[in-house]
Amino acid sequence: MKLSARNVLPGKVISVSKGATTAHVRVELAPGLTVFSAITNEAVDELALAVGDTVSAVIKSSDVMIGK
Amino acid sequence: MKLSARNVLPGKVISVSKGATTAHVRVELAPGLTVFSAITNEAVDELALAVGDTVSAVIKSSDVMIGK
Amino acid sequence: MKLSARNVLPGKVISVSKGATTAHVRVELAPGLTVFSAITNEAVDELALAVGDTVSAVIKSSDVMIGK
Amino acid sequence: MKLSARNVLPGKVISVSKGATTAHVRVELAPGLTVFSAITNEAVDELALAVGDTVSAVIKSSDVMIGK
Amino acid sequence: MKLSARNVLPGKVISVSKGATTAHVRVELAPGLTVFSAITNEAVDELALAVGDTVSAVIKSSDVMIGK
Amino acid sequence: MKLSARNVLPGKVISVSKGATTAHVRVELAPGLTVFSAITNEAVDELALAVGDTVSAVIKSSDVMIGK
Repeated sequence: MKLSARNVLPGKVISVSKGATTAHVRVELAPGLTVFSAITNEAVDELALAVGDTVSAVIKSSDVMIGK
Repeated sequence: MKLSARNVLPGKVISVSKGATTAHVRVELAPGLTVFSAITNEAVDELALAVGDTVSAVIKSSDVMIGK
Repeated sequence: MKLSARNVLPGKVISVSKGATTAHVRVELAPGLTVFSAITNEAVDELALAVGDTVSAVIKSSDVMIGK
Repeated sequence: MKLSARNVLPGKVISVSKGATTAHVRVELAPGLTVFSAITNEAVDELALAVGDTVSAVIKSSDVMIGK
Repeated sequence: MKLSARNVLPGKVISVSKGATTAHVRVELAPGLTVFSAITNEAVDELALAVGDTVSAVIKSSDVMIGK
Repeated sequence: MKLSARNVLPGKVISVSKGATTAHVRVELAPGLTVFSAITNEAVDELALAVGDTVSAVIKSSDVMIGK
């Protein structure tokens, strides 16, 4: 499946921590460049997300702000 | 100002194109790693965004999905 | 690619209309049940979206509000 | 109150589960077509959301991606 | 209809400007306190939004960042 | 850092409550006008958010719906 989201950034999972309903996942895109993601615990389970997994961080362009 | 957004990724503007009300901006985070942003034309004007600018791509963790 | 987004709803494209930078796409999920999507023109082009296409509407659970 | 959100989809609550601060709610829009929502516990309490309730799933068009 | 969105802020429309597909609307919440909204042209038409209208700005709590 | 987000609303923190991974923060923008924010616990810690702090509520224009 190809997505309309303009940002599908490949990386490696470097941490997964589940909360009560929301989990936090860190993905390394490049050395020293990490993206932080908050998803549901169910998504972590269904994707069987674990440290070292090759994944993509998917972000809609309208969710990317610019700071200058 | 420090932000609650967990992702404040430094980069360089490589393209800016304004539409009728919405503009598209591309930011290079690392060689070959580009992020696409859709913001208002007003934001482009107010930040005086131009190719070559050093900026940050700001993304809330709840806006980052994972694909595997 | 499997997604962390909890909602991946299959349907058929019933309209595509491009604006200056943002396009509007309607997807029929079931008879009489249509979802309206605003994506970039680039996404419409890259996916070659056209009326009649079988697609999925992808929505993060944190983007679904409840009204009662 | 009428909303600018282009998607106000009627359905029935089929599950509600509260976490520490975030709750997950499932809404059936049509037989076999379910939408998953993550809202605050406070919202669940204030709307007194319970299984069987007639509700609407409210989604902005800019939060609907397309996969093909 | 009551909403799960934690922020339903009453105000007055002070400007409406339509683009090709996306419109910009400004709502004054209090003297000197204005909120800027980007919605679809269709929403502007359907709500018949005009300067002077009494409206609410509706914002999910997960879309409110904090800067300090 | 100046932001592309069109809404940077100054206010005072009136409550902070952390959950398992997600925290809820209330910011008073004007007397009787409060905004509710859901951010990560990590953000609360990193900003050292506490009641009485002068902060800004930061909201993208595409995340502001209109109800009428």
